[in-house]
Amino acid sequence: MKVDLNCDMGESFGLYTQGNDEAMMQYITSANIACGYHAGDPHVMRETVRLAKEHSVAIGAHPGLPDLVGFGRRKMDCTTAEMKDFITYQMGALREFARATGVGIDHCKPHGAFYMQAMENKEVARAILEAIHDVDKNTIVFAVNNSAMLEEAIKMGIPVAKEGYADREHTEDGNLVLTRKGSAIDDYEKMAQRVVRMVKEKKVITFDDKDAAIEVETVCIHGDTPGAVDLAKAIVHALKAENIEIAPVREIIG
Amino acid sequence: MKVDLNCDMGESFGLYTQGNDEAMMQYITSANIACGYHAGDPHVMRETVRLAKEHSVAIGAHPGLPDLVGFGRRKMDCTTAEMKDFITYQMGALREFARATGVGIDHCKPHGAFYMQAMENKEVARAILEAIHDVDKNTIVFAVNNSAMLEEAIKMGIPVAKEGYADREHTEDGNLVLTRKGSAIDDYEKMAQRVVRMVKEKKVITFDDKDAAIEVETVCIHGDTPGAVDLAKAIVHALKAENIEIAPVREIIG
Amino acid sequence: MKVDLNCDMGESFGLYTQGNDEAMMQYITSANIACGYHAGDPHVMRETVRLAKEHSVAIGAHPGLPDLVGFGRRKMDCTTAEMKDFITYQMGALREFARATGVGIDHCKPHGAFYMQAMENKEVARAILEAIHDVDKNTIVFAVNNSAMLEEAIKMGIPVAKEGYADREHTEDGNLVLTRKGSAIDDYEKMAQRVVRMVKEKKVITFDDKDAAIEVETVCIHGDTPGAVDLAKAIVHALKAENIEIAPVREIIG
Amino acid sequence: MKVDLNCDMGESFGLYTQGNDEAMMQYITSANIACGYHAGDPHVMRETVRLAKEHSVAIGAHPGLPDLVGFGRRKMDCTTAEMKDFITYQMGALREFARATGVGIDHCKPHGAFYMQAMENKEVARAILEAIHDVDKNTIVFAVNNSAMLEEAIKMGIPVAKEGYADREHTEDGNLVLTRKGSAIDDYEKMAQRVVRMVKEKKVITFDDKDAAIEVETVCIHGDTPGAVDLAKAIVHALKAENIEIAPVREIIG
Repeated sequence: MKVDLNCDMGESFGLYTQGNDEAMMQYITSANIACGYHAGDPHVMRETVRLAKEHSVAIGAHPGLPDLVGFGRRKMDCTTAEMKDFITYQMGALREFARATGVGIDHCKPHGAFYMQAMENKEVARAILEAIHDVDKNTIVFAVNNSAMLEEAIKMGIPVAKEGYADREHTEDGNLVLTRKGSAIDDYEKMAQRVVRMVKEKKVITFDDKDAAIEVETVCIHGDTPGAVDLAKAIVHALKAENIEIAPVREIIG
Repeated sequence: MKVDLNCDMGESFGLYTQGNDEAMMQYITSANIACGYHAGDPHVMRETVRLAKEHSVAIGAHPGLPDLVGFGRRKMDCTTAEMKDFITYQMGALREFARATGVGIDHCKPHGAFYMQAMENKEVARAILEAIHDVDKNTIVFAVNNSAMLEEAIKMGIPVAKEGYADREHTEDGNLVLTRKGSAIDDYEKMAQRVVRMVKEKKVITFDDKDAAIEVETVCIHGDTPGAVDLAKAIVHALKAENIEIAPVREIIG
Repeated sequence: MKVDLNCDMGESFGLYTQGNDEAMMQYITSANIACGYHAGDPHVMRETVRLAKEHSVAIGAHPGLPDLVGFGRRKMDCTTAEMKDFITYQMGALREFARATGVGIDHCKPHGAFYMQAMENKEVARAILEAIHDVDKNTIVFAVNNSAMLEEAIKMGIPVAKEGYADREHTEDGNLVLTRKGSAIDDYEKMAQRVVRMVKEKKVITFDDKDAAIEVETVCIHGDTPGAVDLAKAIVHALKAENIEIAPVREIIG
Repeated sequence: MKVDLNCDMGESFGLYTQGNDEAMMQYITSANIACGYHAGDPHVMRETVRLAKEHSVAIGAHPGLPDLVGFGRRKMDCTTAEMKDFITYQMGALREFARATGVGIDHCKPHGAFYMQAMENKEVARAILEAIHDVDKNTIVFAVNNSAMLEEAIKMGIPVAKEGYADREHTEDGNLVLTRKGSAIDDYEKMAQRVVRMVKEKKVITFDDKDAAIEVETVCIHGDTPGAVDLAKAIVHALKAENIEIAPVREIIG
């Protein structure tokens, strides 16, 4: 039994620091690195790629909508051509830092409102997948259960990893409850056990207290969740206690 | 006898159109494509790469300082680390559009104030060259005669093409007189003969009417010079009349 | 019988020119000046205010969503608090240029997607109106017939001018058919007669060829409509031929 | 004996928090509020103005160069016309939030590299002063001793307050040693006594250990200096112990 732990990284900007990337790198196996549209800047990107390499953490792009002040959390009514362009631009920028550092890009997980639009909307999902596919057909995309992104990736033959959330609530079909408010849970041990249950039993209690089926190959911990490092530590500990291996997503869905 | 003709391209932005890229593509052999910092946007980048491919024009990056409203023409007192990051970010973004289109990047020519800072300052030149070298040692850089960029590129073993200007004035050591004002010459035939003379006799009349030595492997025509397309046509005509071959820079300095 | 002619102005940016503001100023009575979010920059704002003053054209703010590359034409899922902040920021910036030039701000007309969101959504309309009201209760807002903005402005006691379009299509309830494509009509005389009919008969033929009731106190001509200056000229000529006075909106709804 | 304590405020941006504005407001008499170019956003501006009003702290504009990722700390080679436009735009945006909150703007202190360029360069200083003067001749500007800004403000008859720094080093002519590194001193009591000595004895020990003359009507504490709140507290305590009144700058230079 295996699971990947992913975390949004490199979301600092200029003088502003967000999250504790260095500490999180110890616990995760996949880093989703911001590419400058919703967060991150070229300096932060270079440094975050370096950190990921140093910790042997797989690197993925975390492209957002072009909305820095809104941190990419506001849906934008863009054309699918525009969305495709956003992906190509941001993945390329990150890939160059990776190449300069002697590593590659393994996966792509759009950020915030961009991710939500891809989960809900087939055309958006296809635009993102086409942008990825045009450059490297082996890039893995992340998608929540029962989402447009998951369905389209399968149709297009693009490798896709099913994602659950350590610090967000789920709906009955395994989907994410996105709020601008961040995490609703604050008991790390309880959150860690929820992750174990997702992996082992393929079950999760939903935001409205139902017991739902879920499949997860990768689990997200947000770096800006208060106590994220302690939460990551608790999750790693709980998974190991159950002999669940924590491995980069490539080894799981490969 | 050969020379490359290069032009800054893809400098439109959103609704705003700059230059006539499609028409210019007929006459040039190298397109320097803006990467979104001083001009250009992801949609324009994709389209410009497509146009260059269609016309078999070699593609280069045209990275600028992060100053859209100033069109990258205002010098900025950045650290060399920041400048290195600017190059990596922008070249990566462009390279991804190139890869998605099935082509590669041949050269890099920084834009405006960024280019001038690299011509004058060894540390800036090295930062740019290191960013390029870290990813692809075969990328050709452009540099004016007797510049820091030229000298440093030679030291670092990075291929460099000496550049002259069809529509700007030169100094006695073959350097460029950059103004925010654009072109000072408006007689296309005269400008074309000046290019011919640079290539054939390795000579140019300077802004202050001296006769100076110059070596050029590539000649720049600015796409936003009024009448740029007619100027390009006149230059191509004049070069051909002298049996000077117009070829991508790779074939010249190779 | 009177009507105001308004035009979106100051939508150039940096090196990029949009529209022919100077020529349009001869024909209009109200200039809606972009404030830097979707178009315009501080230099353009100062110059456009100066031009409006020179031509005795009433000045209004034309605030947009923060989306320069999208020219403010993409709806964004912002909170109403965010939208209120957008208005205050942009109106203030413009008002300072007006004050520095010795003039004041008469009206406010949000741009593009921001305007459409205000037409459709009561909460957005109220947010915009509150931002205006907090600073100057006498600022006139523009709104299309049967819109949320019109209704809310009336409720809040904010002066509102009903707007029709010279170069866009209308729906049966006098609303605007917004497309990213611009104008669908290209016969200036026909367009001018349509404006005359809106003012004189309070009627307009809709995009789907129905005859609808409409009330207009101000009519918009887009500066970026091809041939906008000729269209403006034709409208002014047609209105004068019918003895309809063209006057700033303050004199009409006062 | 009186002195004003000023602090740069409202330098948070979107999700990113910088400094502890609410705590600092208890100790200062003048808040220099960022206006969105180097830091701050419309939401942060509104909230910071509200906080200043709540604490009866005088409000000033803190306009920066348009360089968010560089936090306005990189000098830019702009024309004086461009710099004038930057001031007008940003002061207007802030003034509107002030007006919406029922307060006014008392002073202006440019930020970072913009401030340094105004200290060193007469033309830059005049551009800034003209922008201020065009709108409100009574706005107080801040300037360090023996600076171009101080000299030009006196010539133009614009009220100017001489500024010293609690947490930065000074040169022998009372000027500021600006580094990108922030504060060099970390003993709050020692820093507080240095402020007392500036006010009482008009003397300061320079960065190279000389004893220099200095006049200060306002003293700056940077909100992002580590321990800024404790430093502010120590300064207030030390000033009160010497019966030096802490008052808004208007009451001092009036």
